Amino acid sequence: MGEAYRIFFSYNNEVVVPQRTIGVFDSGVGGLTVLQAIRKYLPEEDLIYLGDTARVPYGTKSPETVLRYALQAAEFLCAHHVKMIVVACNTASSVALQILTHHFNVPVVGVIVPGAQEAVRVSTSGRIGVIGTEGTVNSGAYQHEISTLRDGVQVFSAVCPLFVPLAEEGWASHEIARLAAREYLQPLLHENIDTLVLGCTHYPLLKDTLRQVLPAQVSMVDSATQTAMTVKYLLQHNCTLRHDKLERIGSCRFYVTDVPTRFVRVGSAFLGEELKGVERVTLPAISPDMMRLP
Amino acid sequence: MGEAYRIFFSYNNEVVVPQRTIGVFDSGVGGLTVLQAIRKYLPEEDLIYLGDTARVPYGTKSPETVLRYALQAAEFLCAHHVKMIVVACNTASSVALQILTHHFNVPVVGVIVPGAQEAVRVSTSGRIGVIGTEGTVNSGAYQHEISTLRDGVQVFSAVCPLFVPLAEEGWASHEIARLAAREYLQPLLHENIDTLVLGCTHYPLLKDTLRQVLPAQVSMVDSATQTAMTVKYLLQHNCTLRHDKLERIGSCRFYVTDVPTRFVRVGSAFLGEELKGVERVTLPAISPDMMRLP
Repeated sequence: MGEAYRIFFSYNNEVVVPQRTIGVFDSGVGGLTVLQAIRKYLPEEDLIYLGDTARVPYGTKSPETVLRYALQAAEFLCAHHVKMIVVACNTASSVALQILTHHFNVPVVGVIVPGAQEAVRVSTSGRIGVIGTEGTVNSGAYQHEISTLRDGVQVFSAVCPLFVPLAEEGWASHEIARLAAREYLQPLLHENIDTLVLGCTHYPLLKDTLRQVLPAQVSMVDSATQTAMTVKYLLQHNCTLRHDKLERIGSCRFYVTDVPTRFVRVGSAFLGEELKGVERVTLPAISPDMMRLP
Repeated sequence: MGEAYRIFFSYNNEVVVPQRTIGVFDSGVGGLTVLQAIRKYLPEEDLIYLGDTARVPYGTKSPETVLRYALQAAEFLCAHHVKMIVVACNTASSVALQILTHHFNVPVVGVIVPGAQEAVRVSTSGRIGVIGTEGTVNSGAYQHEISTLRDGVQVFSAVCPLFVPLAEEGWASHEIARLAAREYLQPLLHENIDTLVLGCTHYPLLKDTLRQVLPAQVSMVDSATQTAMTVKYLLQHNCTLRHDKLERIGSCRFYVTDVPTRFVRVGSAFLGEELKGVERVTLPAISPDMMRLP
């Protein structure tokens, strides 16, 4: 087994070289918080980001519809020969991960498992709160993953529909955000949680406001950092992590399904830097057969 | 010219009989406020309602994307042989009305002109406020229609992104809604408006809260009632209003593009009655030629 085998990994008889890009998708701008974490941990990697802005949000849509959208997004990324797919959206990770993993020949990383792992690691009392969209909470995905990781843990969930518009409108630190946070978190605090999972990629923008409402002993878990670490671990494991002799800063290309204007405006505020060269694309159709496992 | 000619109207050599249904569409549940007004004014008419719930909302999407969605919705309604299309969505009315009117051979009624007419009728000072989605406000449609109707009127607009989630979550009368209303309306009140147009079909649900924030002398204009009156007027004018000898209560069928669960739950709260028999459909594709006027 020579060096070549160690640094080149084969999926489905196709050689995947470390020079390939990592593909990241979300319904819109939320996944940029995950992209940012990946860029921080893996600055040398090239990335492509897809925001399905013509159909955003996913959080209020049915599991079936979200699965269809996620399959189309993954198809698009695979047509760009990515070496990994990162589902930077809690709703899509909740309902589509198993089927995406089955259909695509590159590793698929969601945001639920990394967040669940971190929550279980951090929680001492085993009483964990999860906040997210209607789709994520109704799927029971966090409940399922957390229970799988540790017996006897209790998960309490709350849907927070105002947090996404608050984050997107730049009102994350507004009095209204604090009032909404108090209202949404009250039932969870009543359950004496010691850990709160921010189960939506928009929510890290509300961290300061949430901190004001949460008692000091409650830890917040944001899956962006954990997901970036999982991405690094899996690339290392598969020998597809870049090993450049000269230091490099990876590129990042952005694709959206609607006209880019709003994505550029809101996304630039999210990332704290001007998003450039955002391109509009049409996602490929998928066969209905892909909607289920064989 | 006999009786037959007076009560039957012909569009494009196709005879349109009064017994046909009226087609109404919106991105989701918002247009149900318009549907309710039509049912009140025209109880004998049969209606079909389409909510494009797989792609809701339209208010943050580009004019081009909203136009494409609106053309697909209108195609769907025309395949059901409607005698009129009601665009029960301010965003779609703002950007798609002219092209819809051009492409379809039945009258197309939007919600902007009826609201603008009522605002101009009600306003004494000629200082009119309009609140709506990003798409509606950026289109300048109200500004355009109001200026066409009366010279020297000044229009002041505000985008209110939290109002839709507040209405959908049943938080329309919550302290948060009052705070948001105060924040959004402040710049308009500073301009001494005497009339406020509720330029989004969700907003009538926030009427009580808005009333608390508005000074008593500011009138609120909700286009649902005005739109229903326009529908009645045009049907009368075209001789396609139902004239049943026996009193009848028209039927109402509902179609949505996502799984109906959420539409039924939120829509039933909107209408104050259980929505039944909601069916999921796929909208037809449209030719790119339809996206522009010849």
